[in-house]
Amino acid sequence: MTKIEMTEQIIVAKKELGLSWEEISKKVGLGSVFLTSACLGQNSLTKEPAKKLCKVLKLGKDVEKALIEFPYKTWEKSIPTDPVVYRFYEVIGVYGDTIKELIGEKFGDGIMSAIDFSMDIDKEKNPAGDRVVITMNGKFLPYKSW
Amino acid sequence: MTKIEMTEQIIVAKKELGLSWEEISKKVGLGSVFLTSACLGQNSLTKEPAKKLCKVLKLGKDVEKALIEFPYKTWEKSIPTDPVVYRFYEVIGVYGDTIKELIGEKFGDGIMSAIDFSMDIDKEKNPAGDRVVITMNGKFLPYKSW
Amino acid sequence: MTKIEMTEQIIVAKKELGLSWEEISKKVGLGSVFLTSACLGQNSLTKEPAKKLCKVLKLGKDVEKALIEFPYKTWEKSIPTDPVVYRFYEVIGVYGDTIKELIGEKFGDGIMSAIDFSMDIDKEKNPAGDRVVITMNGKFLPYKSW
Amino acid sequence: MTKIEMTEQIIVAKKELGLSWEEISKKVGLGSVFLTSACLGQNSLTKEPAKKLCKVLKLGKDVEKALIEFPYKTWEKSIPTDPVVYRFYEVIGVYGDTIKELIGEKFGDGIMSAIDFSMDIDKEKNPAGDRVVITMNGKFLPYKSW
Amino acid sequence: MTKIEMTEQIIVAKKELGLSWEEISKKVGLGSVFLTSACLGQNSLTKEPAKKLCKVLKLGKDVEKALIEFPYKTWEKSIPTDPVVYRFYEVIGVYGDTIKELIGEKFGDGIMSAIDFSMDIDKEKNPAGDRVVITMNGKFLPYKSW
Amino acid sequence: MTKIEMTEQIIVAKKELGLSWEEISKKVGLGSVFLTSACLGQNSLTKEPAKKLCKVLKLGKDVEKALIEFPYKTWEKSIPTDPVVYRFYEVIGVYGDTIKELIGEKFGDGIMSAIDFSMDIDKEKNPAGDRVVITMNGKFLPYKSW
Amino acid sequence: MTKIEMTEQIIVAKKELGLSWEEISKKVGLGSVFLTSACLGQNSLTKEPAKKLCKVLKLGKDVEKALIEFPYKTWEKSIPTDPVVYRFYEVIGVYGDTIKELIGEKFGDGIMSAIDFSMDIDKEKNPAGDRVVITMNGKFLPYKSW
Amino acid sequence: MTKIEMTEQIIVAKKELGLSWEEISKKVGLGSVFLTSACLGQNSLTKEPAKKLCKVLKLGKDVEKALIEFPYKTWEKSIPTDPVVYRFYEVIGVYGDTIKELIGEKFGDGIMSAIDFSMDIDKEKNPAGDRVVITMNGKFLPYKSW
Amino acid sequence: MTKIEMTEQIIVAKKELGLSWEEISKKVGLGSVFLTSACLGQNSLTKEPAKKLCKVLKLGKDVEKALIEFPYKTWEKSIPTDPVVYRFYEVIGVYGDTIKELIGEKFGDGIMSAIDFSMDIDKEKNPAGDRVVITMNGKFLPYKSW
Amino acid sequence: MTKIEMTEQIIVAKKELGLSWEEISKKVGLGSVFLTSACLGQNSLTKEPAKKLCKVLKLGKDVEKALIEFPYKTWEKSIPTDPVVYRFYEVIGVYGDTIKELIGEKFGDGIMSAIDFSMDIDKEKNPAGDRVVITMNGKFLPYKSW
Repeated sequence: MTKIEMTEQIIVAKKELGLSWEEISKKVGLGSVFLTSACLGQNSLTKEPAKKLCKVLKLGKDVEKALIEFPYKTWEKSIPTDPVVYRFYEVIGVYGDTIKELIGEKFGDGIMSAIDFSMDIDKEKNPAGDRVVITMNGKFLPYKSW
Repeated sequence: MTKIEMTEQIIVAKKELGLSWEEISKKVGLGSVFLTSACLGQNSLTKEPAKKLCKVLKLGKDVEKALIEFPYKTWEKSIPTDPVVYRFYEVIGVYGDTIKELIGEKFGDGIMSAIDFSMDIDKEKNPAGDRVVITMNGKFLPYKSW
Repeated sequence: MTKIEMTEQIIVAKKELGLSWEEISKKVGLGSVFLTSACLGQNSLTKEPAKKLCKVLKLGKDVEKALIEFPYKTWEKSIPTDPVVYRFYEVIGVYGDTIKELIGEKFGDGIMSAIDFSMDIDKEKNPAGDRVVITMNGKFLPYKSW
Repeated sequence: MTKIEMTEQIIVAKKELGLSWEEISKKVGLGSVFLTSACLGQNSLTKEPAKKLCKVLKLGKDVEKALIEFPYKTWEKSIPTDPVVYRFYEVIGVYGDTIKELIGEKFGDGIMSAIDFSMDIDKEKNPAGDRVVITMNGKFLPYKSW
Repeated sequence: MTKIEMTEQIIVAKKELGLSWEEISKKVGLGSVFLTSACLGQNSLTKEPAKKLCKVLKLGKDVEKALIEFPYKTWEKSIPTDPVVYRFYEVIGVYGDTIKELIGEKFGDGIMSAIDFSMDIDKEKNPAGDRVVITMNGKFLPYKSW
Repeated sequence: MTKIEMTEQIIVAKKELGLSWEEISKKVGLGSVFLTSACLGQNSLTKEPAKKLCKVLKLGKDVEKALIEFPYKTWEKSIPTDPVVYRFYEVIGVYGDTIKELIGEKFGDGIMSAIDFSMDIDKEKNPAGDRVVITMNGKFLPYKSW
Repeated sequence: MTKIEMTEQIIVAKKELGLSWEEISKKVGLGSVFLTSACLGQNSLTKEPAKKLCKVLKLGKDVEKALIEFPYKTWEKSIPTDPVVYRFYEVIGVYGDTIKELIGEKFGDGIMSAIDFSMDIDKEKNPAGDRVVITMNGKFLPYKSW
Repeated sequence: MTKIEMTEQIIVAKKELGLSWEEISKKVGLGSVFLTSACLGQNSLTKEPAKKLCKVLKLGKDVEKALIEFPYKTWEKSIPTDPVVYRFYEVIGVYGDTIKELIGEKFGDGIMSAIDFSMDIDKEKNPAGDRVVITMNGKFLPYKSW
Repeated sequence: MTKIEMTEQIIVAKKELGLSWEEISKKVGLGSVFLTSACLGQNSLTKEPAKKLCKVLKLGKDVEKALIEFPYKTWEKSIPTDPVVYRFYEVIGVYGDTIKELIGEKFGDGIMSAIDFSMDIDKEKNPAGDRVVITMNGKFLPYKSW
Repeated sequence: MTKIEMTEQIIVAKKELGLSWEEISKKVGLGSVFLTSACLGQNSLTKEPAKKLCKVLKLGKDVEKALIEFPYKTWEKSIPTDPVVYRFYEVIGVYGDTIKELIGEKFGDGIMSAIDFSMDIDKEKNPAGDRVVITMNGKFLPYKSW
């Protein structure tokens, strides 16, 4: 079973059971961003959460195995067309050099890891229109000399 | 005076005065991400903060005027090479569809605005290595039908 | 049922019933540009108009569900080949900077929203050859500082 | 004098005189979109308006000549980075096939000319936020058989 | 029936009947370039010639309908590999600016229409090797000001 | 002297003397398409016409030498933005396979040479709007087997 | 039968009969480079060799017909990944301008035809390691003026 | 002195002395393809030939040094526009897989080296038109297993 | 059987037997990098190891034959998305010119062969986090003059 | 002083003093790969080694400062043309998936860091031709779940 077939089965099961990603991730005991990304085939689960997830969604052994496999992370090259995704691309474009300046100033020469990394997505209530709040948290990795 | 010349003069003045972006933005009374992005030519300032900034950095009227002009936002097309900037591009690639799923689930069909938007960059102390914390906050805009 | 299968079923039904987009959108009570774009899979409908549309076109529950799902908007990257679509691309190329200048002059630093947005397509009778009239109407979103 | 030098001189003169594109185009007697696009080097003026424009902006013969020359229309290839311009690109992406469907339905097989074409940009007052209204008007050109 | 299936059926029928494009277009009463391009799915036919063509090639109603539909013109993006097609691309590359200069000189600021347009391909007998003669004929469209 | 400097000197001289490409090519005794393309640096002249051209335009020995040098033909890669040039690109896109079919039918397997090649641009008077007539004439080159 | 299906049948037959391209081309009476390229769908055969080839490989009428059809030559765009093919691409990159200089010097302004062209591939025995010898032979085509 | 400046000085000296690449390479004692490529900055010379070349062309020490430096080989990416160079690119496109098949058949799994490599360009007299003969000679390098 | 089908069968067999690449390559008697790359279709095996491998994995004759065939090496063009592979791409980007400088300094003008080449991947135990050690070993090939 | 100017001054000083990168890095007390990459502007030095390096090369304070600044790492996008650099790109292309398989097998799901990373380049004497040995050593970073 490929990761793509795995994702299709998960999406179908999720709709039939009427569960949200939020609810599923609470039952499995993982963050909703991480859990969703694993279901979409961009991260792997370890044994225990894979088992729990399949129990929650009433899916078989093959989905469990596919969840555990290490993914080849892949995405739409160059520039995404969907407006939701594109706006984040635009944010990185506009603020990329600013981020580099401020990380350099606060931490020294190095990067924010995209591997030792987590992300949360929250809703901020606001009478002028609710707001999306994204928090990224990644380990700082300094360049080493040798 | 173009935005590029403006940025060069600001960088030189900043180095000579030994000020950080953090310190400058506090004196001007704006967030450091926003202030830095305006100095790098990716956002415009209104009259008052432009004046204050030039006073802090001992720069002339032409820099003040250039800060106020509306920028043509531009950035490295396709894929950035610098590892600091690239890691954020990778994050959007890996988590783009996850973000879309979860915004859809929490808010309905629509996007996070990249215009009515703010960003903060913080340092989280950690004995296993300090962590970079990025918070993005953007208004949710629902698609309208007509 | 994917959005692509949904579009195929709608196109077949529309031809068999001999209805135009104009007629369908009147029966459903939505603008023809918006209704057509939803049928082509680029916008989602809410429950009521999805139901009405399926009744008009004598289509089943699965089409109704597919119309309600949030689309991943996608289109021909880089430059379209079809002359109808390309001419609009050319218009944005030739007049893009002009539009930016005049929006800046009339509204301040900001953009026209492509989300809080509507569009109409009309026919202007003219003895020297009829004319296509496209009207776009989008909310102005000012850049905010923080 | 190249079109680029011409544009630079016009922008400088415009700022010094404190005139808007709107005001300049009224004095010259042309639409503001057309006049601005000619000043940005994307359209040519005929002799009379070129003369008038140079008188309004107190510019010399060489600018007048440059305004009359036929431009090589050129623009940022692939995808523009500035959010103002990008949103229009996104609109064409999302609604391109819809436009094609509806022009076909209302006019037959053919295109909207981008040459025998005009455009207006207006401001619609709205308590929930002002709106940008763009009107495009182009001759319908039917494909001919032979 | 898609345009692609339509083209396949036409090519098969043409081979079986041993007819050339030249012969088919004479029987239908249209130019061979136009007729061939419609059979390859790049132009639409009106009702009468579509009927005649299907009679000549002994094809059914569905082919007739597909011939009448408005095509989404599409072609190999960037640079074609086949030497026959590439040589024309090279010709436009080498002589493009020359064509622009001479159309400007003879007609004023404007373009040759690719819509109100016809093309012929002829064979010129020559003892040193026969020659291909392509004639393009398109309406001149002047840019309008407003 | 590079080909680019040569072209600049020729354009300046041509404007000062108020001559059209048509008039210059008649005085030199060459076709206007060929002569213009050589002046724009895309073809080389032999000694005699180079001399004549410099006499007509009152230009020096260095221009004469530059005209004789073999050019490195170069042009805007991918897709041209100017509408005049783009329309020809569109024509090749729409009719490329048709041209291949008809050359194959009339001549056999082979190509139209873009080297042993000439082109003419004419104006056809027409009350419904004048027409641009382009004639291309190239030697047929059959593929050889060995 | 498409050219692709034709190539597949030929490859299978060749393996089953244990014949090399060298042996097949000798039996057919054509050069091995040309014969192989025709079998891979990049050149067409005339009637006689197509018949002979099918007899040698015990293949049917449909393969014979497919061999005779004029191919749409197509290849991996931009840069090939396979090292064997890439090295030739590199050779053209490194020596392209050198070839242009020396052809210009020896023949005048013009090109080597890729149509009236043949190629041979030989093995040169060498104790320090055998060597590949490629010989290309193409007609010189001078640019003509008109 | 950069390689580019070196090439410019060599080209100027070569024209003033009226020498061909053929003549220069004979005086220096190297093949004309190799010598020309080194003068164009795509290969390096060892000390002796660099000295001789500068003597022949009456050039100074700095040119000699620049000839000895190891070049960063660079060329027009993607697809060259000049017809002379393009035709070789087309040849590799059309015959690339054929070359791979025949090298595999004659030598085993491996490549022709583009480093341990030489090339010659000759003129073959022919009453039907002279022919360009290119001979490439490269060491076969077998893939090794380990 | 294509190389892709071969790889699929090998992966399935490997999972069922619960063998690692390390274990398989020891049984076959080849390096694990080389063996894995051959199983993934990027290198060919000679007869003996192909036979052994199929015995170890209990696979048939057709897999054995497919392993022996010379591969057309192919990979994700431009920039890989998976972070594991991308990091190596980044390493070549950052250190490419450094590698060129140091190879030039230590060996002279020439390259490291990617054909007469081997690679090993090892694990270095480290209390601060284990480390990946990659060793590449390729023959130096000097450029030759002629 | 930009990094580019810094590199130019270092290269000139290095040539005048006749020092190799190897010798310079020994005097400064850093690895030659790291030191060279910092001199080419792809890594930053801390204060002490920057001082030492400028002393060794007899360069001023501005070079010292430029060495300390954090670089914006940048390189030739898409595919490098120089054969030395390209061969490494080819190695990553051919062995990328193999590396991913074996790192996954030996370490689990994660990547080799390109930041906590070092590289060495050595010469292995060999009678059949010396060999280039590249050793890369990077920390393994496991993906974390949250």
